[in-house]
Amino acid sequence: MMDKEELLSMCKRRGFLWRSAEIYGGEAGFYDYGHLGAKLLDSWKQKWKDFFLGLDENYHMIYTNNIMPHRVMEASGHVDHFSDIMIRCERCDSYFRGDHLIEQETGENAEWMGKEDMKESIKELELSCPDCGGDFSEPEDFNMMFTVSLGPTGQKTGFLRPETAQGTYINFRREYRALRKQMPMGLATIGSAFRNEISPRQVVFRKREFLQAELQIFFVPGIHDEKFKKKYQEIEEMKVNIRREDWDETREVMLKEIDDIQPFYLYHLGKMYEFYTDIMKLSSKDIRFRELSDDEKAFYNKIHFDIEVNFDTLNGWKEVSGLHYRSDYDLRQHQENSNQSLSVSTDDGKKIPHVIELSFGIDRNLWSLLDKGYKDDDRTWLDLPKEITPRQVAVFPLVRKDGLPEKSREVFDKLRSDFRVTWEKSGSIGKRYARNDEVGTSYCITIDYDTLEDESVTIRDIETTEQIRVEIKELNDILKELIYGRKKFKDHMEQED
Amino acid sequence: MMDKEELLSMCKRRGFLWRSAEIYGGEAGFYDYGHLGAKLLDSWKQKWKDFFLGLDENYHMIYTNNIMPHRVMEASGHVDHFSDIMIRCERCDSYFRGDHLIEQETGENAEWMGKEDMKESIKELELSCPDCGGDFSEPEDFNMMFTVSLGPTGQKTGFLRPETAQGTYINFRREYRALRKQMPMGLATIGSAFRNEISPRQVVFRKREFLQAELQIFFVPGIHDEKFKKKYQEIEEMKVNIRREDWDETREVMLKEIDDIQPFYLYHLGKMYEFYTDIMKLSSKDIRFRELSDDEKAFYNKIHFDIEVNFDTLNGWKEVSGLHYRSDYDLRQHQENSNQSLSVSTDDGKKIPHVIELSFGIDRNLWSLLDKGYKDDDRTWLDLPKEITPRQVAVFPLVRKDGLPEKSREVFDKLRSDFRVTWEKSGSIGKRYARNDEVGTSYCITIDYDTLEDESVTIRDIETTEQIRVEIKELNDILKELIYGRKKFKDHMEQED
Repeated sequence: MMDKEELLSMCKRRGFLWRSAEIYGGEAGFYDYGHLGAKLLDSWKQKWKDFFLGLDENYHMIYTNNIMPHRVMEASGHVDHFSDIMIRCERCDSYFRGDHLIEQETGENAEWMGKEDMKESIKELELSCPDCGGDFSEPEDFNMMFTVSLGPTGQKTGFLRPETAQGTYINFRREYRALRKQMPMGLATIGSAFRNEISPRQVVFRKREFLQAELQIFFVPGIHDEKFKKKYQEIEEMKVNIRREDWDETREVMLKEIDDIQPFYLYHLGKMYEFYTDIMKLSSKDIRFRELSDDEKAFYNKIHFDIEVNFDTLNGWKEVSGLHYRSDYDLRQHQENSNQSLSVSTDDGKKIPHVIELSFGIDRNLWSLLDKGYKDDDRTWLDLPKEITPRQVAVFPLVRKDGLPEKSREVFDKLRSDFRVTWEKSGSIGKRYARNDEVGTSYCITIDYDTLEDESVTIRDIETTEQIRVEIKELNDILKELIYGRKKFKDHMEQED
Repeated sequence: MMDKEELLSMCKRRGFLWRSAEIYGGEAGFYDYGHLGAKLLDSWKQKWKDFFLGLDENYHMIYTNNIMPHRVMEASGHVDHFSDIMIRCERCDSYFRGDHLIEQETGENAEWMGKEDMKESIKELELSCPDCGGDFSEPEDFNMMFTVSLGPTGQKTGFLRPETAQGTYINFRREYRALRKQMPMGLATIGSAFRNEISPRQVVFRKREFLQAELQIFFVPGIHDEKFKKKYQEIEEMKVNIRREDWDETREVMLKEIDDIQPFYLYHLGKMYEFYTDIMKLSSKDIRFRELSDDEKAFYNKIHFDIEVNFDTLNGWKEVSGLHYRSDYDLRQHQENSNQSLSVSTDDGKKIPHVIELSFGIDRNLWSLLDKGYKDDDRTWLDLPKEITPRQVAVFPLVRKDGLPEKSREVFDKLRSDFRVTWEKSGSIGKRYARNDEVGTSYCITIDYDTLEDESVTIRDIETTEQIRVEIKELNDILKELIYGRKKFKDHMEQED
């Protein structure tokens, strides 16, 4: 079992991530990404865009703001309803999320509880302040949005968006026209979201500022879903791990066995699953779709499954993304509040489109790559997908003399435009391998004395630590094949034999 | 002269950018980017990263938060000093920036004015409220940072960062170690910044939320600048348009003629200039470096030039980026306030590194591409660099029958992974050309009846509207050569003749 602190320590030391404002003691609920973390973030985002925007040529990225006007968040229901229940210790004045304290005590989910349930449960369990043992106040609602005063008078307020989705909905009308009224239409946003968590915790899982990648797909059911049906037929025999709301355990089933859910939903569910297995390369035993109960899901979500990953560092299954069939709730709310028509013309008259939302917590997804990838057996290494890893190739000279550094530099320059590559010359070869294993460098290239004679180098594979010798003139092609192609390292070894 | 409203109207209609929350009447100081704007943004960012991180292998991206702790912005001096001077109309209660009102009246820069100067100037010029004619109150300081309350008690405050720079400085120590103490070291951040402008205006130029790309380079002058000197020598004969603080006009000079400024600064100045001419492809007559006077520049900036672009839509020269030699001010402040050593070991003992900052306002840079690129002569077209334009290629069938749509679809699929490409089948050919010209599609590919016979298509060039006929099997290579290579469209035409 991987220890959370050990993984975090590597992440800090090597440039993945750490608490923000560390030199000032750190700020609760905020993490920064260092140079390796930023590269991992960047390549994950690129893969996400390639994969999900690639599903349909009418799916597009847009860019919207972090600050949302008051009216928008009022229309969306967040001003009135986006709150957690907070309890306060009457002795030491510390604040807690009531559901978390109850969960810790009982081991059961308590997110569904209202204020009354919580009050009773706290009484029943005889809970007191974990910090000082004091008694708790009455549970109260706490709106989790950060408020921002706009303009010099401070009379106008906005909010930091608690999800990127609303910025997309309010642009539906403009994009529908700019995209010449083609439906279905998908609009994606990648950006920050903000929640004033009462008690930030679990590394990047409950942060106050976090990153989301969300794709909102607009369509009128029964009118625009022919396209989805066709695409769904191609994948309906895909097997997924799933736990329905009324099942006791997770089962592996074919999509077409889930016959009470529509193709437009199952198609995107299948594609999300594929992203986790084929792009993020997580083992299917570590991922599942879990259907939320009516108590857990928002009232406007007609269907809601979370994708959960089985974390070593965080005690098991945790949500990393979700697929929400939000019906026409969002556009209807904004139409009513803005007095602008958000309907589309169909053969069956004017209709307000429905929305399916694919929502990913980026920080959680990156943490899942680190959690599942970090191995500490006979050696420490990070097993990341070669297309996503922040560092695909490292180049070094066997020794720091006799022209080897210069030669290795030449090789490095040859690789730079094709790969994420680094060049290192200090430390012994063994230390350089260890350093690169720790951060997930897929291939290490060593330049030795023979290189000067025959223009060949060794490539070492992070997974097996095996090496092959190849000619420099073929190096870029071979690495491309290994990283992006279907050929495996052992195929090259067999070829050599 | 291009009209601002005309360009904005195209931007809204076609999916580049528009006021946020349009359906709610729009929010002052906020703009969203639509599907074409987001692509333009994305490709500009990629080019910026490729170019500036490509300057040195020890320049890296990091990712930091939008919300900054109070202590960080206190140490940086922003809590005390980051303010504009505001005047209020005593009759109608409107707020204005005093310097802007004075500038409008005199045509001269008034940003340097303190409260006393401003009070006198307003009296002298007999200024009154432009909205209602009322008298003004005394000028007062107004801090432009947005405050955010953190946690449930609201006692802890943070700020939305007014620049990305501080997030980078507070990570210097951690990255210096993670990057194994190599100097010079560069850390770049691309992200949002926030300023509570008293009167947002000039489209994207004075927004309340905006995008920055900033590169901070850390080095100890006299110890780590050998590398810069060497690189500088390669470009010292580069000619740039520049206006020194004490010159009456802009002159074209060679870098080496600017002999009172150090190579580490001139090297980066030359590279910024190159980015504008070679990557953004702006004409050198439209760009200049302007040195700021002591009144204009921050006290810690030892050298400060802005890059200005001569805008058609905004009445002339406006700042789009800056190059700031900030000395050791930033790290010294954070060292003193955090009580953590931010010095590095050198042969000459411990030293606090200095910083040169390359700072780009992304929205302004995108607007400069649109402003300089939009042409409305005998036809309307957008002249964008082919590597940056949101849409590089459009593919369409001559008519919507006889298998031409299917064939064009095949060609589209062949191009998708190499280019930003769209497929269109509605409207006449003339209309499709016009639509694509308007948004800067570099090349339009038409599939006609001959295509079915001989597997060839026409490519039309946006710049000249000339066409050439090429074989489908060569299409990807030819387009790559046209977009990324040195070959021009006319070279292909000559070849044909």
